[in-house]
Amino acid sequence: MQKWETQNEGIDGLLYLLHCRHEIVGVVTEAGKNVEKFKVGDRVGVGVIVDSCRTCDICHQDLENYCPKVIFTYNSIHPDGTKTQGGYSDVMVVDQGYVLRFPDNLPPDAGAPLICAGITVYSPMQYYGMTEPGKHLGVVGLGGLGHLAVKFGKAFGLKVTLISTSPKKEVEAINKLGADSFLLSTDPSKMKDAMCTMDYIIDTVSAVHPLAPLLGLLKLNGKLVNLGLPDKPLELPMFPMCLGRKLVGGSNIGGIKETQEMLDFCAEHNIASEIELIRMDDINAAMERLAKSDVKYRFVIDVGNSSL
Amino acid sequence: MQKWETQNEGIDGLLYLLHCRHEIVGVVTEAGKNVEKFKVGDRVGVGVIVDSCRTCDICHQDLENYCPKVIFTYNSIHPDGTKTQGGYSDVMVVDQGYVLRFPDNLPPDAGAPLICAGITVYSPMQYYGMTEPGKHLGVVGLGGLGHLAVKFGKAFGLKVTLISTSPKKEVEAINKLGADSFLLSTDPSKMKDAMCTMDYIIDTVSAVHPLAPLLGLLKLNGKLVNLGLPDKPLELPMFPMCLGRKLVGGSNIGGIKETQEMLDFCAEHNIASEIELIRMDDINAAMERLAKSDVKYRFVIDVGNSSL
Repeated sequence: MQKWETQNEGIDGLLYLLHCRHEIVGVVTEAGKNVEKFKVGDRVGVGVIVDSCRTCDICHQDLENYCPKVIFTYNSIHPDGTKTQGGYSDVMVVDQGYVLRFPDNLPPDAGAPLICAGITVYSPMQYYGMTEPGKHLGVVGLGGLGHLAVKFGKAFGLKVTLISTSPKKEVEAINKLGADSFLLSTDPSKMKDAMCTMDYIIDTVSAVHPLAPLLGLLKLNGKLVNLGLPDKPLELPMFPMCLGRKLVGGSNIGGIKETQEMLDFCAEHNIASEIELIRMDDINAAMERLAKSDVKYRFVIDVGNSSL
Repeated sequence: MQKWETQNEGIDGLLYLLHCRHEIVGVVTEAGKNVEKFKVGDRVGVGVIVDSCRTCDICHQDLENYCPKVIFTYNSIHPDGTKTQGGYSDVMVVDQGYVLRFPDNLPPDAGAPLICAGITVYSPMQYYGMTEPGKHLGVVGLGGLGHLAVKFGKAFGLKVTLISTSPKKEVEAINKLGADSFLLSTDPSKMKDAMCTMDYIIDTVSAVHPLAPLLGLLKLNGKLVNLGLPDKPLELPMFPMCLGRKLVGGSNIGGIKETQEMLDFCAEHNIASEIELIRMDDINAAMERLAKSDVKYRFVIDVGNSSL
């Protein structure tokens, strides 16, 4: 359990469900005397950030996630010196400005990953204008981010194609997640046939990989957003970028206001993550499976043994 | 002299001034019977393209420059088999749909390079939203494109910084072209001081060069447009892209409608290229100087000996 003071006083929240370190859902058990946004008993969520400077231009634009003084939910140090340790606890104190109202009709377990994975794909789709109904979205990689990108794409009214190196993802993408089609990126003839057919691509692959084949899939004015954070630079060929007026964009989670909008959108459109719900005792086994990328699509830990 | 037929009949134009192959200004000497846009005596310009399919979605969006069947002013082949040969001639026939009205108060010699170099920087500044007064534009490279980017930046009300590896460009950029400041990109301490200070960057360098230092100069939501068309891929680090929600965009000249808007904008704001006007007889010497990048900033050839 971590605890810290904030200038506006905090909320005590008994967080009965949480995923990994920073997709946390729970119920308010106690509210500080100046807390107006929440009351005891409210369902709430906490995402990747728990504080920021609150005074800079970036914070004033509701983009606290990009504030240079952002305090992440784990591995950050609060002004009072306490270290943030994520959601591996049954009680947590967070300032109301960084707490999300968790909609009643969102399941707390399957809804939890929306607070990081969900906003990570939702925010760039909004910012880069990748939501025009009827447009064609390619989603590269079918993991925690990718499977939510498929769901958001369908909710926005897009045609969605899952792009993957793994043929076995086809049935999953189409039958379970609602993608319209599947493109095997290791098949040169299929890739050639699909050239200049997509308006947007969300690329969730974190390994270093070539961008040229993906840029080739985009139409004129196509937009490629890479969210995978490869640890080495990617090769960017400028000829297809210029001759097709294409752009490559980055994005990193989202601000509190937009995260709330995203949660409300998900509640309205019945969007939630595919998850495997586990007990705290199962964490070690889950971590071993995670290391082998063996999870569909997120482990969610029932910290309070409230659901299992 | 090149000559070709088009479906709407053409304009004969005695083109008395032209630059290189595709920044051509002249006067209409004869108009086909169905030509409505121009009459004999009108000042006109012809840029990089002289035809396109006219039927695809891209043409219908006034983006003929991106039409897959675009016919460039040189080194393209017209449907009737004739090869386009650029503006190295004293007479030229072009369909009215691909001819620009050249504003009266634009000088024909210094105005000619606007039709390619000018639209090449103007179009991405419009498309990517790099025109908000008060914002800070960095321009990398002070050649034909770069010096016009400085002028457009000032006309849009931006703060403009010229970024160059060459210290001798400072006086030129500030005193002659009106840039607000100069940043020597080979000076690590100056580059460090300038981190996160720019909203937009127009990069005109055609050699392979690192993007990471330029991305570092951009603020949150910063936009980098590369127009230099390096022949090998550039290295794109995704961490600064994502953590600062930055984008890298491409662009290639502009459509006829936007090129006309750009010319009208230049006429209104007294924007023209810096040029060296030469006679046809001087071409060989000029080509030798061009090979050594020894030109400020464009050679313009007086084909008809009308001005010299």
